[in-house]
Amino acid sequence: MTYLVNDPKQFAADSLTGMVAANEDYLTEVHGGVTRATDSPQGEVAVIVGGGSGHYPAFAGWVGPGMAHGAVCGNIFASPSASQVESVVRASDHGGGAVLLFGNYAGDRLQFGAAQSPLGADGIDTRIVTISDDIASDTPQNWKDRRGIAGDLFVVKAACAAAAAGRDLDAVEAAANKANEATRSMGVAFTGCTLPGADEPLFTVPEGEYALGLGIHGEPGISSHKMDTAEGIATLLVERVLAEEPARTAGGYDGHVAVLVNGLGATKYEELFVLYGTVKKLLTEHGLTIVHPIVGEQVTSLDMAGVSLSLMYLDPDLEELWLAPGDSPAYKTGSVTAGQRREVVAHDEKVAIRAGSPESAAQAEELLPLLQALADMSSANEASLGKLDSIAGDGDHGQGMVLGSTAALKAAKQAVAAHAGTSTLFDVAGAAWSEGAGGTSGALWGAALRELGTMLSDDQAATEDRLGRAAIAAARRFAQLGEARPGDKTMVDATAPFADELTARLDAGDDLATAWAAAARAATKGAESTADMVARKGRARTHGTASLGHQDPGAVSFALLMSGLADRLANS
Amino acid sequence: MTYLVNDPKQFAADSLTGMVAANEDYLTEVHGGVTRATDSPQGEVAVIVGGGSGHYPAFAGWVGPGMAHGAVCGNIFASPSASQVESVVRASDHGGGAVLLFGNYAGDRLQFGAAQSPLGADGIDTRIVTISDDIASDTPQNWKDRRGIAGDLFVVKAACAAAAAGRDLDAVEAAANKANEATRSMGVAFTGCTLPGADEPLFTVPEGEYALGLGIHGEPGISSHKMDTAEGIATLLVERVLAEEPARTAGGYDGHVAVLVNGLGATKYEELFVLYGTVKKLLTEHGLTIVHPIVGEQVTSLDMAGVSLSLMYLDPDLEELWLAPGDSPAYKTGSVTAGQRREVVAHDEKVAIRAGSPESAAQAEELLPLLQALADMSSANEASLGKLDSIAGDGDHGQGMVLGSTAALKAAKQAVAAHAGTSTLFDVAGAAWSEGAGGTSGALWGAALRELGTMLSDDQAATEDRLGRAAIAAARRFAQLGEARPGDKTMVDATAPFADELTARLDAGDDLATAWAAAARAATKGAESTADMVARKGRARTHGTASLGHQDPGAVSFALLMSGLADRLANS
Repeated sequence: MTYLVNDPKQFAADSLTGMVAANEDYLTEVHGGVTRATDSPQGEVAVIVGGGSGHYPAFAGWVGPGMAHGAVCGNIFASPSASQVESVVRASDHGGGAVLLFGNYAGDRLQFGAAQSPLGADGIDTRIVTISDDIASDTPQNWKDRRGIAGDLFVVKAACAAAAAGRDLDAVEAAANKANEATRSMGVAFTGCTLPGADEPLFTVPEGEYALGLGIHGEPGISSHKMDTAEGIATLLVERVLAEEPARTAGGYDGHVAVLVNGLGATKYEELFVLYGTVKKLLTEHGLTIVHPIVGEQVTSLDMAGVSLSLMYLDPDLEELWLAPGDSPAYKTGSVTAGQRREVVAHDEKVAIRAGSPESAAQAEELLPLLQALADMSSANEASLGKLDSIAGDGDHGQGMVLGSTAALKAAKQAVAAHAGTSTLFDVAGAAWSEGAGGTSGALWGAALRELGTMLSDDQAATEDRLGRAAIAAARRFAQLGEARPGDKTMVDATAPFADELTARLDAGDDLATAWAAAARAATKGAESTADMVARKGRARTHGTASLGHQDPGAVSFALLMSGLADRLANS
Repeated sequence: MTYLVNDPKQFAADSLTGMVAANEDYLTEVHGGVTRATDSPQGEVAVIVGGGSGHYPAFAGWVGPGMAHGAVCGNIFASPSASQVESVVRASDHGGGAVLLFGNYAGDRLQFGAAQSPLGADGIDTRIVTISDDIASDTPQNWKDRRGIAGDLFVVKAACAAAAAGRDLDAVEAAANKANEATRSMGVAFTGCTLPGADEPLFTVPEGEYALGLGIHGEPGISSHKMDTAEGIATLLVERVLAEEPARTAGGYDGHVAVLVNGLGATKYEELFVLYGTVKKLLTEHGLTIVHPIVGEQVTSLDMAGVSLSLMYLDPDLEELWLAPGDSPAYKTGSVTAGQRREVVAHDEKVAIRAGSPESAAQAEELLPLLQALADMSSANEASLGKLDSIAGDGDHGQGMVLGSTAALKAAKQAVAAHAGTSTLFDVAGAAWSEGAGGTSGALWGAALRELGTMLSDDQAATEDRLGRAAIAAARRFAQLGEARPGDKTMVDATAPFADELTARLDAGDDLATAWAAAARAATKGAESTADMVARKGRARTHGTASLGHQDPGAVSFALLMSGLADRLANS
């Protein structure tokens, strides 16, 4: 449970502000996250970490000399938006380019990826390395598709030490990739975690059992086991992680390992130490040399009770990087000389809204109630969507839809007040949705709304048919951006039938309201099969959080909102 | 709940071993706790911290350069034994004497106090400073009688920095006292904590409420409040702590404060940061300057959910000590140069057991079943005694009685095997009880058994009357050592009637079995009124954990054991 909270919607933001206030020597808050409070040498590669919040100290707790240069901080368990990524990278850049490091999740991949192009246009070269240490989430062959959990620390540390050593962008990227390839983790959960403001955990573990292969966003694990002693659990974790030990070679990996026993939140340090006693014994018996073990909370999952074991199989270079000094709010080792305090220049990019033609502006005002309806419906369904998402994913979908649609509405109202045309209306609304929601669905909805903007014009009002064709293009954007197809059990199972049916009905000469109603029914049908599938296969789908193939609650929310708009159109 | 556990009785020991394994650069395990792995300058005052376990990082997590020299680690929530204190002080001594720093609890006072004399005899001058920062536990006038909670960190840091600066024993003691006088804390609990192996928490907080004035051993707080926002709770904590702000004076305290927002265990870092946001705002509005705030887990209480706020009102000297560098497993600040690694000499003091006369040795063997009975009865009643203690105190009484009586029995068996007489029998049994149990009751039971040893002889068998008179003297030891009187609602309410009745019956010529049975009935009567009192006044008695006046479950266990022995004597 979360007890210390003001407004649950503001929890991540309030927490970030408090974190910065408590760590002013290390952190400066910027739009979208934090950057180092102290300076770095000109030309040093910046290492930017990030992802959803709720994992402290990951990720902002790792920012400081010898550690990361900045952290992008999304909402609880939701990836940050591309503009947040952009902002933190710009604030942290020292002319050497940036390596963007985050756990391998669809939303983060989308949003960090979307920031690369505008940054590159301004001469900031960025490289993305996705961390994929979690053995439970995919096969050894598909290790790059696994999700990132506590092994994040090893990969971040290696990249940051390489940057601090003055290596260039290619070399820092290579160090991060090598560290990721050498890192394996496996975890167990004893209880689920509860989102701030929620009354129930995202999942529960039956009494007398534990769940193997937990995720760090309340994903419930891949198998259940009878509760065991600390020794028994340590033995299982060690076995699983050692199953992927690479061959020992002279000059390469020769049995030296970095070890992290990571508490998920509610598990006591005393318990972690009890577990580590057995871990150390087993690794030593296996002929391994433990280098600078870390036992504590490094990548948490709110108040989840559980523990994970991570090993990084070290070669001499990785060992040097692991042992290099670092100083940050939550990870300190060795002795680091910090740079001078610096002023961080805020990159405020307020775009002035251009007024459209009177006709287009009038239509924009007419269309505003539709955005109001999206926001109202999202709020009304927040709890049920969150609940659905907690079966298959990380439980943040309802919250994301509310944050996105509310932000879009606010921006749209400002645009209408500035007499914007329909193109600008949906462009700013889409940008605000992506920014406000973060996450995968935020990116997709944002892109879809902006596609509407592209299809419309600020100079003239659109015909009914043109509006319908724009909606089709927008609906198609979900599939294009998500690289998913119907049958993949994603929201495309709802968006594709919607676009197909709307096309067919408009082609057949139906009016927009009639065509839309039919398209919404098609979307609902597609979403229902998805939702059913999710409900049945929930536990087995944990793998999927790393891929776009499983944003299933998105199909449900899309169908819901389209049906709601159909009612609006019918009554207008 | 505790999930990662092997044998619950070994939890504290297993945890300590794992902690040392994970922190070999800082810690070396010795009998009774840990000492620094690295050397300190000859003549430097050693600062020894300690108390019960279950509070990580307090206390062993604070050992390292610039921080403490050693930590004595008792069982979960139970003070260590005097011999453990002795061992850690000896291993940590660098010829400058030692300041012994611990929270103001009866058991710790007894056990640390008992170690002073043997250390002094070997030329190690020790000073005791008891930490008493918890506003909730006594009046402002009686601030020295308050118990110690998270403010421990400030007092420890000040003393350690003073020692690292090369100050002498008087000056380090003075710095510790000044820091304690300047430190105030207030906490709230949202849930109770659960002892390893237990199924239920020591107390519960009703849903929708929080408890003000928590203790760190599962003591339930002094008042209940309707659940509030983080802002509301922060406001209450700040008000209470600022209520005892000293006057601001030039050259003295001038509004500079060290601040600690401390999580009790299960409360997330993210929540602590949310709270700190308001704390900072309020303190700043009050005109205070915050110096090096700490937001995190420093003094935990197993898996309790809750938070405390501690302020140290700084004068320039305290500010310098607070800001001095320190490096330990869990508290690192600034840059410290560690000494060389050192070999720690183990102070093994195995006392050879002297054989007694055949008559006395034969009687020792005859009396051994009585010690067996004490151990058996303690084990059989562990859960109910623990439950009783959790109402009034820290829930460790059942566990302490089992650990003590089992250790006593083991030592007694070894003594009998070595043909010891009755004096030696009870002397070694008493020493082992105190050592094995720790805590207040361990110290009292140990002293009582040793008193039996003093009253008996290794040269001749004792008469029945002599055995009875020895038991009377032993029973009177509880009152002498505890400085308590009948009616104080302590175990003396059982031991005094026992001693009185046994005296009267023996004087009247009763045989020992008959006299004992009557004395046991008197003890039971005394204990019952105590137990009743505890049950009724449980919540209100939290104040008392700092004083010997409230070891109430001890009266119950004493009566129980004496009744059991009466049955034995009647049947032998």
